[in-house]
Amino acid sequence: MTSLSDLPIRDDLRGLTPYGAPQIDVPVRLNTNENPYGPSAELVADLASAVASAAADLNRYPDRDAVALRTDLADYLGHGLTADRVWAANGSNEVLQQILQAFGGPGRTAMGFEPSYSMHPIIARGASTEWISGAREEDFGLDAEKAVAAIEEHRPDVVFLTSPNNPTGTALPLSAVARVLRAAPGIVVVDEAYHEFARSGTPSALTLLPDHPRLIVTRTMSKAFAMAGTRVGYLAAAPAVVEALLLVRLPYHLSTLTQAAARVAVAHRAELLGAVDRLRAERDATVDWLRGRGLEAADSDANFVLYGRFADRRMVWEALLAEGVLVREVGPPEWLRVSVGTGEEMAAFRAAMRAVMEELL
Amino acid sequence: MTSLSDLPIRDDLRGLTPYGAPQIDVPVRLNTNENPYGPSAELVADLASAVASAAADLNRYPDRDAVALRTDLADYLGHGLTADRVWAANGSNEVLQQILQAFGGPGRTAMGFEPSYSMHPIIARGASTEWISGAREEDFGLDAEKAVAAIEEHRPDVVFLTSPNNPTGTALPLSAVARVLRAAPGIVVVDEAYHEFARSGTPSALTLLPDHPRLIVTRTMSKAFAMAGTRVGYLAAAPAVVEALLLVRLPYHLSTLTQAAARVAVAHRAELLGAVDRLRAERDATVDWLRGRGLEAADSDANFVLYGRFADRRMVWEALLAEGVLVREVGPPEWLRVSVGTGEEMAAFRAAMRAVMEELL
Repeated sequence: MTSLSDLPIRDDLRGLTPYGAPQIDVPVRLNTNENPYGPSAELVADLASAVASAAADLNRYPDRDAVALRTDLADYLGHGLTADRVWAANGSNEVLQQILQAFGGPGRTAMGFEPSYSMHPIIARGASTEWISGAREEDFGLDAEKAVAAIEEHRPDVVFLTSPNNPTGTALPLSAVARVLRAAPGIVVVDEAYHEFARSGTPSALTLLPDHPRLIVTRTMSKAFAMAGTRVGYLAAAPAVVEALLLVRLPYHLSTLTQAAARVAVAHRAELLGAVDRLRAERDATVDWLRGRGLEAADSDANFVLYGRFADRRMVWEALLAEGVLVREVGPPEWLRVSVGTGEEMAAFRAAMRAVMEELL
Repeated sequence: MTSLSDLPIRDDLRGLTPYGAPQIDVPVRLNTNENPYGPSAELVADLASAVASAAADLNRYPDRDAVALRTDLADYLGHGLTADRVWAANGSNEVLQQILQAFGGPGRTAMGFEPSYSMHPIIARGASTEWISGAREEDFGLDAEKAVAAIEEHRPDVVFLTSPNNPTGTALPLSAVARVLRAAPGIVVVDEAYHEFARSGTPSALTLLPDHPRLIVTRTMSKAFAMAGTRVGYLAAAPAVVEALLLVRLPYHLSTLTQAAARVAVAHRAELLGAVDRLRAERDATVDWLRGRGLEAADSDANFVLYGRFADRRMVWEALLAEGVLVREVGPPEWLRVSVGTGEEMAAFRAAMRAVMEELL
């Protein structure tokens, strides 16, 4: 039987294992930053009816440019955006891959400030773009002057800023983003997957778009929008950036069903985003509780909390799993990340942590 | 306003225009090889109900490995295949992109025999894989000995064989595929997007899989399966090939809705594939009619016919469009491609061709 190592795969893939958190069926899943609140019966009915309408034409290809969906997303984002400044794909991962295919590639580099979203370097590798790892500070913030110095040293073609950052939850001040924009020689991607969870008063990099044609702000419907299963990521940028992505996108990349379902979700945004306040309150309570137990917990503007430190985080992760609570082993070596679930789920998390701490720590 | 040429896009993208047939709303669309028969009311109801069931969990990520769908597709393909030998993605374009990300890339080459599916070189470029253009014969067939000589000369990392070929309709004898498999130093992809339309007795390259761990056979639900809007492509190969693709696939690339809808489609395959015989008969009648009018038409094992020759095909294409019939300007310079539609649509095509020929030719 032929094994993977017998096949002529690219050298930079040899010895790797596939990316992805374990998909384990446990009572309390707090490992992939999903929104714990499923759609209402009314929304499910609207989705089914939109799909039934669209299904009559499923033998035809979808609208290749997904104009209606992009119009809806532009309307949701506000800031005077229009469909020609918005692009969507199958999850923000595909959006990021298209950005790297257009602006990265062989002989080009992309840079991020870590710890950050671990898919950024993986997508860069998939697009044959060399990854340059910049550093965040001890408190997971970004020192803008150091970031600028690193950018001036390496001259990356694409810079990633993640705000709020995954897995640390740290939002960047707009002044830092603006400073990086002035220094970066190429494209700057601000990954705002968790923006809707940021504490009030946290501005979006969308406000910087009018003056920065090389800025791309990415978003997702997987988190606050509670549509992880629909796989829709999107971005806002100058119209020329969208034109560039049209050169690398696979034609008809977004299915008729995805376009229809995402439009229903945008129409129901009051419901879907309605849980954000509750999740923010649970998040802040989780940070407080962890700190009250003598643990460290990073300030978070997202729907998760990075906490630690554990000399052996693997042991803590496994002990929590044994209690029926799945968290994520990700980020700096002594930390774990817990997604913010329902009140009940967070109570289960606290009970499990209490038990684990009594046993192990 | 920043224009595309002001942006730091990759050099090999400069001056290009996006791929894709014009999406024009005309009465008779015979340009993208869609199956003209939409789903029945019963199938639409089943789709809506499957989506409604799946929608309750849309706040959760999909099954990352799409195991249930891959199991269904393996069952459909037969040949003793199992889920670990089948992989699926958003259209066969994404399947092909993943193959090139795993087995192509910078410093590697992919080769096809043209005229063939024009996305093959475009996807290769997107995956930074150098494209080597081999040639088909005058009758659009492949001379196996010449193909082997070209492969031995260029030593491509990935070879594409398209059978039935797009845009010519030409199926390859299995002996030619086997001959190429023996000569190719790397991966051989047999793109069988149109296989279900082949004249009876045309074997699939699936029969060669047991002896060839570097063979990949790709299929799609967009053509015979009449599910172009659902965007599902898939492949069969050795388990190790699937393992390689897991290293480059974007996690959760296939949405919950796509997986659910595709499973319903596979379950309804008797209905969906039920139009294939009718389409084959229309195709053969179209070939005969065109030849009867003194035109050339390539023998076709697909759901389209390549026909010509026209000194100015653009003029013929435009004249047909003016008659409300949209065909495709693709392939060798003097030819046009017409997809096989319903009996009514083909009658409209014949009437339009008659009018155009009287006017122009």
